[in-house]
Amino acid sequence: MTITGKGARRTRRSPQERRRQLLDLGRELAAEASLENVTIEKVAERAGVSRALIFHYFASKQDFHQAIVREQIALMVERTAPPDDVEDPIAMLSSSMEAYLDYVEEYADDYVGVLRGTLSADPALRQVVDEARLAMIRRILERVPVLGLEVTPAVQLAVQSWIAFVEDVVVRWVAEKDVTREQVHGILVGSLPALAGAASLVN
Amino acid sequence: MTITGKGARRTRRSPQERRRQLLDLGRELAAEASLENVTIEKVAERAGVSRALIFHYFASKQDFHQAIVREQIALMVERTAPPDDVEDPIAMLSSSMEAYLDYVEEYADDYVGVLRGTLSADPALRQVVDEARLAMIRRILERVPVLGLEVTPAVQLAVQSWIAFVEDVVVRWVAEKDVTREQVHGILVGSLPALAGAASLVN
Repeated sequence: MTITGKGARRTRRSPQERRRQLLDLGRELAAEASLENVTIEKVAERAGVSRALIFHYFASKQDFHQAIVREQIALMVERTAPPDDVEDPIAMLSSSMEAYLDYVEEYADDYVGVLRGTLSADPALRQVVDEARLAMIRRILERVPVLGLEVTPAVQLAVQSWIAFVEDVVVRWVAEKDVTREQVHGILVGSLPALAGAASLVN
Repeated sequence: MTITGKGARRTRRSPQERRRQLLDLGRELAAEASLENVTIEKVAERAGVSRALIFHYFASKQDFHQAIVREQIALMVERTAPPDDVEDPIAMLSSSMEAYLDYVEEYADDYVGVLRGTLSADPALRQVVDEARLAMIRRILERVPVLGLEVTPAVQLAVQSWIAFVEDVVVRWVAEKDVTREQVHGILVGSLPALAGAASLVN
């Protein structure tokens, strides 16, 4: 590859832009199949750069994969944010859960891998996932009073652990597919008020 | 140790008895603190045998620990079996959950370790835990009709994932202790009919 004159200006990127480009390509390759599809070779080829350049931005393939998973999880938190223009808490939850299931369907392999597979053994990724859970829990707890429930320690605990229920439902659904997406959505939306309600009865 | 005449008969054990003795000692040492407390040295000392003999029964310390965890999990399944003499399903569930919380309190460190810690990365132990979950799920599903609910695929999925909810509640409770044991018990007992009920409304 010879870089001359204008061409050089067109393809020269700031380190930040280059990192972003590599991550975007990585995410793209992951979305086509799964993280295993993201090899340094393929990314180098698509980006038109050398393998060495990629290792300038990411210490190892594992490091690159980790960065991609961080992006995926950030995307999940972003997409499942409850809509601003909906006031009914159940409609809000329903909309969030649709967005969540869209995400799950798009990134099924990697998401299940992060929750249950080899990726789940990586302490750095566990922390990323825990932070995403915390963000989602915080959002829900802010809205529990709209359901007419007091946020007691028992309700708080039940809402936190509802996330574990949701993840388990989704992991089983992806593996078995013996219920429809609509049924999964119904279970997810119905389960939160059911659990919060049951916990609110605990003295 | 000199073994002669009658003494030899008293302390000679069949390989099966010896293995059992070593496992029991291992469980005992684990119950005093956690699995980390179970070193080959301590077990050898308490059993009055050589380290080499222990390695005759267990290939490695990891292998020995794995066998102890299997015993612990089997104990959990055994102890949480619903009582035969109780007919009301909620009373049955309540009694199972008391037994489960007894177990959790007794083996907190190892149980949390198996569910969330380094032990959870061990595929053989994951399988042990999965089998225990299956046994518990099967027991519950057999009794769901007593609640007046049909076991639809959605109800089945919700009951399966209720186990993930229960485990998460318990892991958080052990770590934080910001609710009482009675409150945790109330959450666990209330959550199963709440989730099964919510899932039964899904078409």
